[in-house]
Amino acid sequence: MAPKKGLLQRLNEGVVIGDGGFVFALEKRGYVKAGPWTPEATVENPEAVRQLHREFLRAGADVMQAFTFYASDDKLSNRGNESSKKYTCRGINDAACHLAREVAEEGNGLVAGGLSQTPTYLSGLGKENTQKEFQRQVDVFVENKVDFLIAEYFEHVEEIEWAIEVCLKSGLPVVASMCIGPEGDLHGIPAGECAVKMAKAGAHVVGINCHFDPFVTLEGLKKMKAALDAASIKVHLIAQPLAYLTPDAHKQGFIDLPEFPFALESRICTRWEMHRYAREAYNLGVRYIGGCCGFEPYHIRAVAEELATERGMLPKASEKHEPWAGGLKMHTKPWVRARATRNYWETLKPSSGRPYCSSMSKPDNWGVTAGDSILKQKTEATSEAEISQLRTKAKTVNGV
Amino acid sequence: MAPKKGLLQRLNEGVVIGDGGFVFALEKRGYVKAGPWTPEATVENPEAVRQLHREFLRAGADVMQAFTFYASDDKLSNRGNESSKKYTCRGINDAACHLAREVAEEGNGLVAGGLSQTPTYLSGLGKENTQKEFQRQVDVFVENKVDFLIAEYFEHVEEIEWAIEVCLKSGLPVVASMCIGPEGDLHGIPAGECAVKMAKAGAHVVGINCHFDPFVTLEGLKKMKAALDAASIKVHLIAQPLAYLTPDAHKQGFIDLPEFPFALESRICTRWEMHRYAREAYNLGVRYIGGCCGFEPYHIRAVAEELATERGMLPKASEKHEPWAGGLKMHTKPWVRARATRNYWETLKPSSGRPYCSSMSKPDNWGVTAGDSILKQKTEATSEAEISQLRTKAKTVNGV
Amino acid sequence: MAPKKGLLQRLNEGVVIGDGGFVFALEKRGYVKAGPWTPEATVENPEAVRQLHREFLRAGADVMQAFTFYASDDKLSNRGNESSKKYTCRGINDAACHLAREVAEEGNGLVAGGLSQTPTYLSGLGKENTQKEFQRQVDVFVENKVDFLIAEYFEHVEEIEWAIEVCLKSGLPVVASMCIGPEGDLHGIPAGECAVKMAKAGAHVVGINCHFDPFVTLEGLKKMKAALDAASIKVHLIAQPLAYLTPDAHKQGFIDLPEFPFALESRICTRWEMHRYAREAYNLGVRYIGGCCGFEPYHIRAVAEELATERGMLPKASEKHEPWAGGLKMHTKPWVRARATRNYWETLKPSSGRPYCSSMSKPDNWGVTAGDSILKQKTEATSEAEISQLRTKAKTVNGV
Amino acid sequence: MAPKKGLLQRLNEGVVIGDGGFVFALEKRGYVKAGPWTPEATVENPEAVRQLHREFLRAGADVMQAFTFYASDDKLSNRGNESSKKYTCRGINDAACHLAREVAEEGNGLVAGGLSQTPTYLSGLGKENTQKEFQRQVDVFVENKVDFLIAEYFEHVEEIEWAIEVCLKSGLPVVASMCIGPEGDLHGIPAGECAVKMAKAGAHVVGINCHFDPFVTLEGLKKMKAALDAASIKVHLIAQPLAYLTPDAHKQGFIDLPEFPFALESRICTRWEMHRYAREAYNLGVRYIGGCCGFEPYHIRAVAEELATERGMLPKASEKHEPWAGGLKMHTKPWVRARATRNYWETLKPSSGRPYCSSMSKPDNWGVTAGDSILKQKTEATSEAEISQLRTKAKTVNGV
Repeated sequence: MAPKKGLLQRLNEGVVIGDGGFVFALEKRGYVKAGPWTPEATVENPEAVRQLHREFLRAGADVMQAFTFYASDDKLSNRGNESSKKYTCRGINDAACHLAREVAEEGNGLVAGGLSQTPTYLSGLGKENTQKEFQRQVDVFVENKVDFLIAEYFEHVEEIEWAIEVCLKSGLPVVASMCIGPEGDLHGIPAGECAVKMAKAGAHVVGINCHFDPFVTLEGLKKMKAALDAASIKVHLIAQPLAYLTPDAHKQGFIDLPEFPFALESRICTRWEMHRYAREAYNLGVRYIGGCCGFEPYHIRAVAEELATERGMLPKASEKHEPWAGGLKMHTKPWVRARATRNYWETLKPSSGRPYCSSMSKPDNWGVTAGDSILKQKTEATSEAEISQLRTKAKTVNGV
Repeated sequence: MAPKKGLLQRLNEGVVIGDGGFVFALEKRGYVKAGPWTPEATVENPEAVRQLHREFLRAGADVMQAFTFYASDDKLSNRGNESSKKYTCRGINDAACHLAREVAEEGNGLVAGGLSQTPTYLSGLGKENTQKEFQRQVDVFVENKVDFLIAEYFEHVEEIEWAIEVCLKSGLPVVASMCIGPEGDLHGIPAGECAVKMAKAGAHVVGINCHFDPFVTLEGLKKMKAALDAASIKVHLIAQPLAYLTPDAHKQGFIDLPEFPFALESRICTRWEMHRYAREAYNLGVRYIGGCCGFEPYHIRAVAEELATERGMLPKASEKHEPWAGGLKMHTKPWVRARATRNYWETLKPSSGRPYCSSMSKPDNWGVTAGDSILKQKTEATSEAEISQLRTKAKTVNGV
Repeated sequence: MAPKKGLLQRLNEGVVIGDGGFVFALEKRGYVKAGPWTPEATVENPEAVRQLHREFLRAGADVMQAFTFYASDDKLSNRGNESSKKYTCRGINDAACHLAREVAEEGNGLVAGGLSQTPTYLSGLGKENTQKEFQRQVDVFVENKVDFLIAEYFEHVEEIEWAIEVCLKSGLPVVASMCIGPEGDLHGIPAGECAVKMAKAGAHVVGINCHFDPFVTLEGLKKMKAALDAASIKVHLIAQPLAYLTPDAHKQGFIDLPEFPFALESRICTRWEMHRYAREAYNLGVRYIGGCCGFEPYHIRAVAEELATERGMLPKASEKHEPWAGGLKMHTKPWVRARATRNYWETLKPSSGRPYCSSMSKPDNWGVTAGDSILKQKTEATSEAEISQLRTKAKTVNGV
Repeated sequence: MAPKKGLLQRLNEGVVIGDGGFVFALEKRGYVKAGPWTPEATVENPEAVRQLHREFLRAGADVMQAFTFYASDDKLSNRGNESSKKYTCRGINDAACHLAREVAEEGNGLVAGGLSQTPTYLSGLGKENTQKEFQRQVDVFVENKVDFLIAEYFEHVEEIEWAIEVCLKSGLPVVASMCIGPEGDLHGIPAGECAVKMAKAGAHVVGINCHFDPFVTLEGLKKMKAALDAASIKVHLIAQPLAYLTPDAHKQGFIDLPEFPFALESRICTRWEMHRYAREAYNLGVRYIGGCCGFEPYHIRAVAEELATERGMLPKASEKHEPWAGGLKMHTKPWVRARATRNYWETLKPSSGRPYCSSMSKPDNWGVTAGDSILKQKTEATSEAEISQLRTKAKTVNGV
């Protein structure tokens, strides 16, 4: 059997489909705690992590991203989190790599080791300390022979440049993806410039993940593409947006929305919105197309179905999903069978069932970023008194 | 070790939490086809079914309902479905019982075997033929020593009376649950009268599942309770509603909504709405409280957390979910930590992010019910020409 | 020239179109103060009152209702209002009759003198005192030879029965109209029973005005009609609803909505909704069809255009309004000319341009009614301290 | 008595409040036909025009703009309009000037004669023909000794430059106002450049009217101000926006919205939105602040009340409107008295009462502009066949 093709070869030859975000999916399944969002489930409940990998593989994902999000030592022990003490950074990352590899081998999947932004950077502790956090994770990824590295979910281009620098030493392909929108990074650096900086730092694939919905994310990618073209830089593009609609989010994305993270349901994209996302991303030239928070396996399946012609195949899970609602032909009710057409679903504007709710929210806009003292992270759990102070500030800032 | 307490003892002593619906959850995970909605996954992908059972157990469910929804022979071969031919009705039901039992034994769970309405009834083929379909499933449930039977998802009280008659012969406790709203069954029999008929037919627990949101469902249960009280009948009540908000649905429930089944996302209940549901159901006197289509494990966890005092315990999955958003105290962003309060989430009105969508839909209202020729089911797959005819009728009926 | 036909003859022979409400229309034009809502403009700015009468006549109204709303002595001096002192009850009512008569003579209009509910009743001062207030107005109406009397805007059937008793002594036809919805009067008397009581008290025409939108109002009228039919009583029906959509209002109508009275704009009915209202009212058997608060002349024109065949004529103002948007054929922009069709406007669902607003509000529901001490009216102006107390109570009642 | 101060002196010394648009207000009152929108009412129903002038004067308007909108000969005879034949261009304009002067003399008002864009320009008939149309109106204005001229409602800066050229020959102050948004004119010329062009053509006041809501209009004015500042040009600014909220309108403004012109009700601004508009306009440096289509007298009153300190007086109509809902202190219902506070109305988000409607619309976007053959105007009435063709094109363009 021929060896698997690597990431860059696949991107050169066609399109690569990413998986969806694990923290939100596993929070709903009962294995991740919203707040810290750390991935100790790789040790505690490996069967749940394995099953989610399988579902994404089955849905068409080409990449099994090891569940190492926020698995840096400083995050695992931030604000009362005891995951680091109980399982160690190494233990969690190692288990994650094993699970991803196990499922990847069930198909033709690649394994990626992932880094994300650190409390160390946010607290202003400098390049050396920040890179140490990255290095500890990369060491485990290299030992586990992952296929490539992905630095993702960075709000500041400075920090991701430091991450790229660490990653490149591994010799593996490096994907770099920031959680920014069309307005750029939290220090005010435009999206296009962020892309150029990541590429110049050596990343092989650059782009955007998380924080904004598919369509806002693609607006950001348009700016990145324009800036890369203007600088005559050739790299691949990656898009891994939210599955939550965020037309009303400002610079800091869905975290600012009042519904984050426990009342986002009504913003969840339909599969048909994912068809549109996949097509628009592809047309823009993006070749690594996946998802982040909110993506469930059926969202990735919709991406894979939209790109079935380009990829020359349907995903395994399409056995249970005929294109464009064809399965409804088998429904018992005739008026539901009448919906078994593409046009019906493409033009439908879904209602919310929420007559007391509006369509847009006013986001929190605290306007603070790395370097601001209120963003200093710490090991101790947050007290009630501190929460109460924050509530007061929230009322002041939002004027309510 | 003492034997497990049975369903009726548990209901007499306190509250029993049901699980959520499997067909919608597994459709999103890639294992069930929307349209036929049949449970051949019990044979094809047992690991996925097992994992979902585990998540509900972990979330606090006391019942593992074997995944036998729509697993009657006539449904497994309706309109081009080949599941019956490939796996047999017996094979699918048997595998379902094994999976449910396996996970139930991991905790203190009960196993239920479930029946639902049949194409045979809908096509007007009479009592004898309909009961034959039920008997085939009940035989497998008895062989597998399930703890009780549940006849659920019936639109016509006549058919569920026939089902109860079959179930009672097993000697097991019988739960009877119709998919109706406050307006009653599809033949115009009021909700209260349906309850009385089910109880008189011998069901030990009666109530409502599917088709309407938690709050509309409880309106229906209020009518049932009033009628049972008026008739001096003592039975337990069950509620297993949708996790989709349906204030705009008419008599036939969410199936009539234009968003059914592929664009219901923005109607999904939040966990806080489930807290409210659990409390209101409990206060009304409902003691079997679970969910149906749309319920994910975190929705059942919310029910279990709301009733933690009554049950004297929190579910296992609450390890990953501090009550009322407490986990947000560990979030990196201070304005998100400010949301770690009950009042914030109880009063929030979530926005949809969909400014081009309305809050209410006009449902299809074909007004047809059992006995109507357009509802005759058949074995052959539906043709394009038939779908086209239905589209035309839909336009006429809906006046668009 | 033959004498004008009277109200009852007109109703027996066909349909009578009422005018719209004056207080809201003249508030927007700058002549009525929201809060007291009293009609001293008849003395202060007769040209403005006259012009509004003319516009309604031109729009098709058959009735010029003298602008005597809330023009009882007790209301004209309630809570700091000095209108009674400055202009006297008699002066205001007399001027109102002159203005209505003047314009009625420009066409074929009838003049009606109107009574409405009194602070005296609300403050629990008894039948004799309440009827004295009515008598003072009726005396002026009789002197001015109005064509009929209309007792309207009563929340309690008891008070309107007292008003009818006073009116009947004049020998004129009496119309009696309550500002209630399908739930009935504020003392809990069902809508149907209210109708029967008004008819038995001697009113020649009974029905509903104000407080609810056209469609909710017609629900109330359906109940009235059913009760009258059941009691074999033959009287004519009147509907004069709001031009504000109020699907979310509870028993007390639009006054409870948080938008009352200064942010109701987005609830204003379109002319096409008025077409539908007129048709549904006519089909229900209502023969006196007009409007109340929010109705502008173009709303009455729409009613008259919808009933043009029944009335055998179009209103004068239709010179400036071709049926069903025909005037758009003369628009400069071709895509606006494309809208010159009935179907376009009948099926359009108008957007609000308000993405941060919801479609429904939670009404205030203080649940107080006549007899409750908080409803005692008084002559002195309300103090800031009293307003502040009310704000506190509002927060408590509404739980915000 | 000292002579009245002129426009420019008033602008130099403080703020000038304009009136509202006449065509929409009088359409609702029954005197203007939507479609042609021409002002023959000045001859046909002078009392209605006079009354509306009075209401705006009373509401605080400093300018009585003669009702000469679209009163050019070519418009008065476009597409079957017979106003030109019946009343002549001269007759209509002359009557308009008389009415405006009559009411202006009742207070301290200025009279303006107004020009707007012409079918001649839209049909591509060139500068000479277009200016001839303007000249005919200006001649009447000069004869009537109006206080200044206002060229408004121009979609193409080229045409308004031609109009300014004609106006300047009169020796009167010239206001120039385009109906554009932040995206600029319909030939793609940016808003800022339009302002510079108008100023360089000699206009003393430049700005924007109609087509967009107050807040979108101010976005356009910000661009104008920036460009004028950059060019070191000193002129006054004018804003006369719609009273309809249009966040979803594209380049061509509210005309493209599907609700135009007969279903705009739910977009109408509240008085509180007008307070905000007036404040933001003033803060931006705009000194001629008025309104256009949709503005009713109470909207202008809100502008005047917001600027009462700057102007040193309240308008006459404020006799019937205490600031910030103070009149509600006299309401009979205590929960309405509780709303007599500024904070209540400033923070209220009004609901629409329309649960089947969305908050945003998809505008028509035909993308045609002057020079396009489909925009050729003509004298003959539009036929049904032509309308039918346009409907077909509308469906194609909008993809529905």
